[in-house]
Amino acid sequence: MTGRDRGPYAKGVARREEILAVALEVIAQNGCRKASSREIARRVGLSQAGLMHYFGSREELYEAVLRARDERDNETYYLPNPSFEGFLALIAHNAEVPGLVQLYVEYSAEATIHGHPSREFFLRRYDWVRGMLVTSIVNAQEHGEMGPAVDVGAAVDLLIAAADGLQVQWALDHSVDITGQLTGLWQLICRSSWRSLPG
Amino acid sequence: MTGRDRGPYAKGVARREEILAVALEVIAQNGCRKASSREIARRVGLSQAGLMHYFGSREELYEAVLRARDERDNETYYLPNPSFEGFLALIAHNAEVPGLVQLYVEYSAEATIHGHPSREFFLRRYDWVRGMLVTSIVNAQEHGEMGPAVDVGAAVDLLIAAADGLQVQWALDHSVDITGQLTGLWQLICRSSWRSLPG
Repeated sequence: MTGRDRGPYAKGVARREEILAVALEVIAQNGCRKASSREIARRVGLSQAGLMHYFGSREELYEAVLRARDERDNETYYLPNPSFEGFLALIAHNAEVPGLVQLYVEYSAEATIHGHPSREFFLRRYDWVRGMLVTSIVNAQEHGEMGPAVDVGAAVDLLIAAADGLQVQWALDHSVDITGQLTGLWQLICRSSWRSLPG
Repeated sequence: MTGRDRGPYAKGVARREEILAVALEVIAQNGCRKASSREIARRVGLSQAGLMHYFGSREELYEAVLRARDERDNETYYLPNPSFEGFLALIAHNAEVPGLVQLYVEYSAEATIHGHPSREFFLRRYDWVRGMLVTSIVNAQEHGEMGPAVDVGAAVDLLIAAADGLQVQWALDHSVDITGQLTGLWQLICRSSWRSLPG
């Protein structure tokens, strides 16, 4: 605790938090279209230029929202020891924060374009999720839930792809059972993991 | 062949085709951001208002691009009898048209937002792909490539989700092996299909 925490710096942090909270709300309704940053600015009583004082760009704002979410989710669902159950629990929790799912679906797609400022963020984010799922598979193998015959890298990329694709389907139709489908895929991988590897 | 085909109507059709072709090129570079429709208008020598004479809105233009692509792909890869091989061949072909993949990735994500004008288009499009993959699975079962113990609806949604998610990964990193991964998922489903259904 330093003097700064009660000073103008702390006020700036609080304001940033307020903007992040409002951003989630607006994104839940409108997605992350250009119009939304105008709406966020309006609701927190700032001009768009004023909003950019706290977040240098629309892209920085969205990254900050997703980063804050990942840090919280990492603590809640993955630490200290990542497991597939934790991954599923996180995905079940997502149904309660549709705005974040919407932001992730829209912004991760937008960021794939060459030269996008958040391309690096998502590449690093994939690496993080990959690492977490690799550990989950190794743990499942140690506990005897999964056998040795698994191409871990391929399995992990497939699980992430299925989770991403199912989130798009869910965003269109909330009756899509993401956790049920991912459990099914996990079981397919588990069953197949006791066979001898081909070749 | 009617008189109209050589008249102003045919010119309008040709102009629309020209705009569609330019749209693909621009989208390959910039994705389907708002700025792109300005760029498309510029390249075909029209004002944005002029462009909207041919396509009533940015959304209508993107839907027209994706619809034209689906009609062509349906004839080339699915008719007369859909199969998983056809699905894979289409996906392999996608690597040659990264602009279309980019448009699909970005626009299908954007369209999930409640009230989006293309939401219905994508819901119908999912139904179409679903129907095609259901037939592919039934065909594979008839040929003995797949056994009877398959939850066809779940398998189809999982294949679509994996294809969609892998396309996002591929858009970020072209070394991602989409067809290899989907073949792996198909084989997991095939292997599991000879077990008795649980319960």
